[in-house]
Amino acid sequence: MQKLLAIDAGGTSTRAVILDGSGRCLGYGRSGPGNPLSGGFTAAVSSLGAAAEAAERQAAERSGTLASALVAMAGASTQTDPEPFRKRLAGAGLAGALVIESDLLAVFFSGTFQLSGYALVAGTGAVAARIMSGRLDAVGDGMGWLLGDSGSGYWIGHRVVRAVAAALDGRGPRTALTPALLQTLGIRASATAGDHGRPAALQQLIHELYALRPVQLSRFAPLAFQASDDGDGPARTILAEAGEELAQTLGAVRDTSVAGPVVLGGSILRHGSALAERVEESLSEAGAGRRPIRVSDGVAGAAVLALMRAGISVDAEIFARIHRTLAALRTD
Amino acid sequence: MQKLLAIDAGGTSTRAVILDGSGRCLGYGRSGPGNPLSGGFTAAVSSLGAAAEAAERQAAERSGTLASALVAMAGASTQTDPEPFRKRLAGAGLAGALVIESDLLAVFFSGTFQLSGYALVAGTGAVAARIMSGRLDAVGDGMGWLLGDSGSGYWIGHRVVRAVAAALDGRGPRTALTPALLQTLGIRASATAGDHGRPAALQQLIHELYALRPVQLSRFAPLAFQASDDGDGPARTILAEAGEELAQTLGAVRDTSVAGPVVLGGSILRHGSALAERVEESLSEAGAGRRPIRVSDGVAGAAVLALMRAGISVDAEIFARIHRTLAALRTD
Repeated sequence: MQKLLAIDAGGTSTRAVILDGSGRCLGYGRSGPGNPLSGGFTAAVSSLGAAAEAAERQAAERSGTLASALVAMAGASTQTDPEPFRKRLAGAGLAGALVIESDLLAVFFSGTFQLSGYALVAGTGAVAARIMSGRLDAVGDGMGWLLGDSGSGYWIGHRVVRAVAAALDGRGPRTALTPALLQTLGIRASATAGDHGRPAALQQLIHELYALRPVQLSRFAPLAFQASDDGDGPARTILAEAGEELAQTLGAVRDTSVAGPVVLGGSILRHGSALAERVEESLSEAGAGRRPIRVSDGVAGAAVLALMRAGISVDAEIFARIHRTLAALRTD
Repeated sequence: MQKLLAIDAGGTSTRAVILDGSGRCLGYGRSGPGNPLSGGFTAAVSSLGAAAEAAERQAAERSGTLASALVAMAGASTQTDPEPFRKRLAGAGLAGALVIESDLLAVFFSGTFQLSGYALVAGTGAVAARIMSGRLDAVGDGMGWLLGDSGSGYWIGHRVVRAVAAALDGRGPRTALTPALLQTLGIRASATAGDHGRPAALQQLIHELYALRPVQLSRFAPLAFQASDDGDGPARTILAEAGEELAQTLGAVRDTSVAGPVVLGGSILRHGSALAERVEESLSEAGAGRRPIRVSDGVAGAAVLALMRAGISVDAEIFARIHRTLAALRTD
């Protein structure tokens, strides 16, 4: 029996699944960061190998060669060289070819087996895609923290720290984000004045935040969700504006001639926030009809893609089998 | 006769003036970047020495020791060690003490000899100050590109590049900023499609802009002024919002018990733009009465401060003499 390897390589973790041609998942493995852009090429190659080996150990009772591999990866483009990945995975039992695809396709096919539609992913970054005939047809945003990623975790976290800096400085309104951020950073909100009457807490805040890489500000995005749930006005405004930005990003790739489902992925689009409400509102304004489909990662979609690229068309039965058998293997 | 040395040390250039106790300016010199924070300590020490020596050469015909020096410097605080500067300037003839003061005070006293009031400076960064009895009493913003500098040259330049990226991506409105920015960067606006239908010009733009240090985005601020003058909507919005931010920064340091003039400095607050209009509007809303005073740099104010710190009170006559005799020396 021929087996296929599908990998969802992300900036935080890498997930590998081994499946047969009917969509039956036989082994699952997980390892560390697998994105060569954010974590370096060598570390990514090593993570992919480790995840594949863990999946192979679980699947080893089912004999058969590993005929091909599909890797879904953020920032994947025609420029990404698959050869170092193929070599490493050959060591993990891969006998055939390796294809690299965009993580956007993996997110999309985690939610649907239809060949056309839309995906919107908002984690640290933010990006939307239009998918046609199983391929990326257009991409919106995904331009990184400095130029884009509007409405992303970075974008929200950046607005959180600016709102707190302005509040402590008397330039902006008071907000529950201030005590929340100071506590997260272990800064005591004392009344002590520093230079020129600038509060000591503000001086320390500036010092701590400039020591971070800009994208690390995304770790403060959850403070906005918490404060918004607690009724804080400035936090609600940040999330509503983030939702507006994400709606525009999705709108930029919409094409009235392309129907199909909208799949939402990434931690920022969780259900029930002011942000998610705004995105769903924009979908009904655009007459998208069906409610969007939420997915937690792209590993099932990588499996769908692995089958499709091996020439197997995925129908409702195969799609359901992938999800059912994968869920039985996963403990994460 | 005793002479005094006054230096206005900026991120782009350093200006030195030698004057006598009556405010008569005797020599003027100019050199390169003199800000230790942005350009390094060694370069700043060297620039201050070079500017002082040039001023001393012009003033040498008037005999007398250089009794004391005052250096106005951005980011100056109680932590800045004056000793390396004093040593270098001793080599340029300084016999007495050296005092470092904030560049905000120099800007303020370039516009007035009154001891209390307000200064707002918007160049690459943005900062406001309340001055009382000749000393900094409160400072607003000045928190750098990541956390503050709201309404500054960086802030405007950043919005310019994001607006262009969004316009090319279909997420934002068309704007005259797009051809202006592409031309500035030498990018040809071709219809060629890159990966996933993203325009080739946009891919090149992303590449060029991530190669800059973030603060360098301030160099695109003039594009917003030009496009706004030409009636471009998005550019006008950016400038109006920048003006609003600067008005809030000034508002944060206002204290109804402190009267006195408002002095505006920095390239961003030039007359006649949508931005300057908004700032002036906020001043009349706040009942500030008199129109703000505009100054082009802080060298005259450094001279005022040098006299004040030497125990000489500066009146209208001395203030006018400083400006008149300085103007006669300056050719820059």
